[in-house]
Amino acid sequence: MDFSLDERTELLKKELVDFMYGHVYPNEEAYAKELESLEDPYAWSQAPTLLKLRAEARSRGLWNLFLPGEEGAGLTNVQYAPLAEITGRSRMLAPAALNCAAPDTGNMELLAQFGTQEQKEKWLTPLLNGEIRSAFAMTEPAVASSDATNVETSIVREGDEYVINGTKWFITGAMNPYCKIFIVMGKTDPTAERHKQQSQILVPRDTPGLTVKRAMRVFGYEDHYDGGHAEIEFKDVRVPVSNIIGSEGEGFAIAQARLGPGRIHHCMRAIGMAERAISMMCERADTRTPFGKPLSDQGVVRTWIAESRVRVEQLRLMVMKTAWLMDTVGNKGAHTEIQAIKIATPAAVEWILDKAIQVHGAAGLSQDTFLAGAFAGTRSLRFADGPDEVHLNALARSELKRQRARREARANA
Amino acid sequence: MDFSLDERTELLKKELVDFMYGHVYPNEEAYAKELESLEDPYAWSQAPTLLKLRAEARSRGLWNLFLPGEEGAGLTNVQYAPLAEITGRSRMLAPAALNCAAPDTGNMELLAQFGTQEQKEKWLTPLLNGEIRSAFAMTEPAVASSDATNVETSIVREGDEYVINGTKWFITGAMNPYCKIFIVMGKTDPTAERHKQQSQILVPRDTPGLTVKRAMRVFGYEDHYDGGHAEIEFKDVRVPVSNIIGSEGEGFAIAQARLGPGRIHHCMRAIGMAERAISMMCERADTRTPFGKPLSDQGVVRTWIAESRVRVEQLRLMVMKTAWLMDTVGNKGAHTEIQAIKIATPAAVEWILDKAIQVHGAAGLSQDTFLAGAFAGTRSLRFADGPDEVHLNALARSELKRQRARREARANA
Amino acid sequence: MDFSLDERTELLKKELVDFMYGHVYPNEEAYAKELESLEDPYAWSQAPTLLKLRAEARSRGLWNLFLPGEEGAGLTNVQYAPLAEITGRSRMLAPAALNCAAPDTGNMELLAQFGTQEQKEKWLTPLLNGEIRSAFAMTEPAVASSDATNVETSIVREGDEYVINGTKWFITGAMNPYCKIFIVMGKTDPTAERHKQQSQILVPRDTPGLTVKRAMRVFGYEDHYDGGHAEIEFKDVRVPVSNIIGSEGEGFAIAQARLGPGRIHHCMRAIGMAERAISMMCERADTRTPFGKPLSDQGVVRTWIAESRVRVEQLRLMVMKTAWLMDTVGNKGAHTEIQAIKIATPAAVEWILDKAIQVHGAAGLSQDTFLAGAFAGTRSLRFADGPDEVHLNALARSELKRQRARREARANA
Amino acid sequence: MDFSLDERTELLKKELVDFMYGHVYPNEEAYAKELESLEDPYAWSQAPTLLKLRAEARSRGLWNLFLPGEEGAGLTNVQYAPLAEITGRSRMLAPAALNCAAPDTGNMELLAQFGTQEQKEKWLTPLLNGEIRSAFAMTEPAVASSDATNVETSIVREGDEYVINGTKWFITGAMNPYCKIFIVMGKTDPTAERHKQQSQILVPRDTPGLTVKRAMRVFGYEDHYDGGHAEIEFKDVRVPVSNIIGSEGEGFAIAQARLGPGRIHHCMRAIGMAERAISMMCERADTRTPFGKPLSDQGVVRTWIAESRVRVEQLRLMVMKTAWLMDTVGNKGAHTEIQAIKIATPAAVEWILDKAIQVHGAAGLSQDTFLAGAFAGTRSLRFADGPDEVHLNALARSELKRQRARREARANA
Repeated sequence: MDFSLDERTELLKKELVDFMYGHVYPNEEAYAKELESLEDPYAWSQAPTLLKLRAEARSRGLWNLFLPGEEGAGLTNVQYAPLAEITGRSRMLAPAALNCAAPDTGNMELLAQFGTQEQKEKWLTPLLNGEIRSAFAMTEPAVASSDATNVETSIVREGDEYVINGTKWFITGAMNPYCKIFIVMGKTDPTAERHKQQSQILVPRDTPGLTVKRAMRVFGYEDHYDGGHAEIEFKDVRVPVSNIIGSEGEGFAIAQARLGPGRIHHCMRAIGMAERAISMMCERADTRTPFGKPLSDQGVVRTWIAESRVRVEQLRLMVMKTAWLMDTVGNKGAHTEIQAIKIATPAAVEWILDKAIQVHGAAGLSQDTFLAGAFAGTRSLRFADGPDEVHLNALARSELKRQRARREARANA
Repeated sequence: MDFSLDERTELLKKELVDFMYGHVYPNEEAYAKELESLEDPYAWSQAPTLLKLRAEARSRGLWNLFLPGEEGAGLTNVQYAPLAEITGRSRMLAPAALNCAAPDTGNMELLAQFGTQEQKEKWLTPLLNGEIRSAFAMTEPAVASSDATNVETSIVREGDEYVINGTKWFITGAMNPYCKIFIVMGKTDPTAERHKQQSQILVPRDTPGLTVKRAMRVFGYEDHYDGGHAEIEFKDVRVPVSNIIGSEGEGFAIAQARLGPGRIHHCMRAIGMAERAISMMCERADTRTPFGKPLSDQGVVRTWIAESRVRVEQLRLMVMKTAWLMDTVGNKGAHTEIQAIKIATPAAVEWILDKAIQVHGAAGLSQDTFLAGAFAGTRSLRFADGPDEVHLNALARSELKRQRARREARANA
Repeated sequence: MDFSLDERTELLKKELVDFMYGHVYPNEEAYAKELESLEDPYAWSQAPTLLKLRAEARSRGLWNLFLPGEEGAGLTNVQYAPLAEITGRSRMLAPAALNCAAPDTGNMELLAQFGTQEQKEKWLTPLLNGEIRSAFAMTEPAVASSDATNVETSIVREGDEYVINGTKWFITGAMNPYCKIFIVMGKTDPTAERHKQQSQILVPRDTPGLTVKRAMRVFGYEDHYDGGHAEIEFKDVRVPVSNIIGSEGEGFAIAQARLGPGRIHHCMRAIGMAERAISMMCERADTRTPFGKPLSDQGVVRTWIAESRVRVEQLRLMVMKTAWLMDTVGNKGAHTEIQAIKIATPAAVEWILDKAIQVHGAAGLSQDTFLAGAFAGTRSLRFADGPDEVHLNALARSELKRQRARREARANA
Repeated sequence: MDFSLDERTELLKKELVDFMYGHVYPNEEAYAKELESLEDPYAWSQAPTLLKLRAEARSRGLWNLFLPGEEGAGLTNVQYAPLAEITGRSRMLAPAALNCAAPDTGNMELLAQFGTQEQKEKWLTPLLNGEIRSAFAMTEPAVASSDATNVETSIVREGDEYVINGTKWFITGAMNPYCKIFIVMGKTDPTAERHKQQSQILVPRDTPGLTVKRAMRVFGYEDHYDGGHAEIEFKDVRVPVSNIIGSEGEGFAIAQARLGPGRIHHCMRAIGMAERAISMMCERADTRTPFGKPLSDQGVVRTWIAESRVRVEQLRLMVMKTAWLMDTVGNKGAHTEIQAIKIATPAAVEWILDKAIQVHGAAGLSQDTFLAGAFAGTRSLRFADGPDEVHLNALARSELKRQRARREARANA
């Protein structure tokens, strides 16, 4: 288990930190205002500041870092982790500036891994170039999305076309008019074996029958910066059969493959958020003197700072171990660890953000600081890709199994 | 210590429950939409639905219930508590419909208790009639508002006028154009004894030099339903000397008098929010079947439900005891208990809301349920009127003092 | 809901507090040493100090306060609660001195309520007089005692005798040689309906076939002060049929009746422990100055003190409400509340004791303070009479049911 | 950062696991009974079972593994960590069997590092050979030992001797009559600079004036297995000047050097305890069926198991990182990380033990399982070497400092 950063990562890290201080942090406020003044505030990808930053990032080689293999930067997870963490410190701007923002990242990975040549040319290339955006349409209002097999949207073959019917919601990015392509998860065969019923299919935004109905909010946020979270209706939406990803019945397996990297990226960025919160908490505690001495002299605030540091250290190590496992034994081999970080990260980061907010008082909940938005995003993670409880249950099941095997091995020894 | 509800309260409770089911709950959605479609979405007090409900409530005798004495309904705290709790179940609509919404309630109490005849006629009467709204301008961005003595806004006498200079923020209600009067806390004499420096003064909205600068958000919410939270600049704002409340140097004492009822009302309503959350959690848990059986069969969810019930029962009893103490020994005598409920309530209710959200999945964080907004409001309470930590510290100080007295009494016995 | 103390209770309380300061606290250390020097250290009921205190308590009318009706002091639960709390402040000595210690209290109630005239004369009278001790033999090592229906000890009728076979453990009091009578729970008819299989039967200590095998420890404590916790074997133990309590098949129902008061007494005393811990924490914090200023000036310690006070206030109110319900609507009507206090009390008191220990450092875990022993006792409560989890589950079930009924009532309105 | 186990460690680990299953676990119960039947139950080092196991361990090369350098096994911290963890699974027997039990380990390190040739020959050699035991006498009842500079025991030079006066308590190991040498911390110069007042000195057990007064208990435990925790009086105790360790005024610095390894060893073993608790929790949950299905099917129990796994994984990584830092940048460079694991480990392991106890019911608190004793030991760690609060405070101070430096660096960039 070796988490040392190699030379290439160290160089990229230095470059990225420079970019953050030189271009990202100074533009955060301007970007936030710009979004509000766009004709469509969800059209984040066209904000002038962002366009400028993307050009700058690309010119510095800070582009598509998330994507392994030749199509991307070719980094391992251990290499990407410290970089993703840094982008998390400016969650609204940095991931987008580097073309490393969800859900595009997951969609690009998916297309790179499972797409046909045609699909790649049509959708992956412009995504890699940052020319269009994409969404991943999985969650449905009527069923518990913690279990992907529950999806009810139907994908029915009729001749050379698939016909799609169903309703999706909380489809991140889909409010952005430049989000041109949706990957839709639905059922092609409800009678098949439970994990073989699903398929994934590409649906262009302008396909007749597809209606973006409304923007879902998270707490009070509309999340313009990532294209919002849409409710979408699919009513007799028709696409050519060539739009299927992989083949019929592979939807569940492909979704699983997509989840591992997605989860670890979320965790990496969440650690960056926690680090920013700790920095802010320390600075505020040093400068605020409610009763004649700085907050940083108060025992309770110190306890929060110390606990935050201790928690973030443990988290980062577990994320790094998971990254290392994904690199060495693959996503499947790292399954339990991916679950572990999915469970531990949002809870710990939420705790840290809550304390940082408390140190900031009302400002901490307002638009004037990074904290409340980060809290909302982190809170969402506690059920994104299935609620904590499902992961805890699954992790316990594998622990129980492992312990049983251990007992049996000893009994037979 | 007797918390039984008397006949009058039982009747009012029955009336109020009828009103909630007959008029409030059925109109919640319409009211939310109406607010968005108003010319000024902060002008909640002019929303047609609300106006209708206010008339209905008033005709049923459900009006100004919060206000003791002849000017109001004349209820004790023990009588008002169960009613306020019920209004908390529909936090956006019910308190406003009954003319029992903060900060008007506190302002009306203040005027009733400390206002001159002229002040009462000019401002209290229209407030009691629901014709205008009001705000309480205390919090400032530059100083720690947990200590009211920190306020830096200056109120300087020049002839027959006071000149006010300073910046306030998070002034709830002040974005509403119908919020016609501000009670402003500032310093008339920075050289006086620490708790005698402050005064409170009435400033009409249209006074020159007063600028409502921007709307502060809370977790993304603009809180149209209560007139938002404004940042306000006072630049050489002049009002006649007769606008002072009480006399110079009494501002701190008056603020303290205002806090007791304000805090307990918040706690009462928060318990109502918790009750609604429990109801929602139970209903959702009964109807959602993610893995083939209802969530309400799952041990973890059951633990949440049970813990929520246990917590809310304890909270309510402590709030009732505090109400009873306020009624029998006065706000000062109930000081420690008021602190105790201020500490315990937001934490417990936040916990319950968090679990209810988790049971609802993404819907729980969205605009489709009551929960996320209630969470944001409850989270704010953890520093409204001073952060938890200040109250914990003060409560510990009085406990330590009490224990010392006890030891000494024993030593001398 | 009226928790005021009436005159009689106030008088008893005054008398009891005098007794505590005059006789109990000053003798705690002597009593602890005496127990160790007894021939049999478990024979607590014969320790000279205790005998003296029992005589004193009795002469002051502080005797059998727990027992309602003519056979006891005739107090209601609301009357007994504040007195039981005070005895909890000296858990090893005060309850025993007042003949109010578990499990004798539960056994006396049981005999008073369900015993025949003969049984009462033989066992209840000497128990009421403090001449003998008793035990309640329910828990078994092989089965989950959280469910009383799991009990496997068999009670088989043969002619005029019952023959008992089985193993019990953690039978509190049974190591004391003066514990002369056991109430044993077993199955008379394993084929009957699930809650009708059990019976309770009186087994004198010296019955052949009954073997007290060993002392179970709790943490490292042997709990001499309450007669320890024994493992007991019953091997063809024969008693006359007249020893059965009530009739065959009533064992479960009788156990349920016994549990209500037992639980609330435990909770009352636990609150007394918490109060003592808070007093000790405050005193220690005032006098210990590790880094040049008293611990009571440190924010973290203050937070513990304040939180402790807030928690204990809530707990006491819930216990008082439960007592009041038991008095007014009976144990069955107070079922949910009894569960609630059973859940909330050990957790809260354990938390408070933990903090008091932390303030005391190593001394807090040692025999030199009251704290560690109280922690161990409180920790045990988290599964005595069924683990928290069982109670949480049951309480959730009744909450879910109540909410369903509420929804249906509204739907039909 | 590389935590991979090298070949030597893998071999030792395999050897140790074999030894655990072949010799340690099977002898745990016998050893516990043996201790009670010894003439002096604190004389753990003479228990026949232990003597046999020590011989066996030594013959297998499992001896003095904790000690770096030529005098010991020469392992790094990264190499020793996984081995120490395994010994923690049998905390009473395994560390002692390998001559790796505290406080001997710390004392041997100290002598190896700071002892004179004469001191080494006289005390280190027999300790390394397991012929004698030792104690470290630091904590005093009268002062807060969280701050080593508070120590009040005086060490006064008179001619060729030092005269020692003072009282120590909770001196682990000192009840064992074979504990032949005490390292005593006291003040040689109370007028010197605060960290130069202290010295450490060797005091043989049989020196006149040294009285072992009584055994302190921890949660009722006398901890025979490690020689108990003694209160010791030093009354005009005289030792030759050559008994001083290092030189006068170096006591504090030497203590600091001793603490790093001591703390990490405790943490490593605590992780082993947590792992054993998880194993036990899983096995019990699989085999106990209170309501017709195994506990391991219940969501709440599963949550505990999963949370336990997640916590232990994070802890272990942080401990490994700390070990690696100690190996690469030294104990001083790893100061913050040592504090971090000292804070995080007891809390997490205590939580896990608590849950494992809950799954075991009453048995979990008794002498029949490993759990309650491990809980008591872990709880003690929360103030051993200074309470958590002191470490949290110190860690916060260094975080605040680091963040200030970071801000300044950026401001100047």
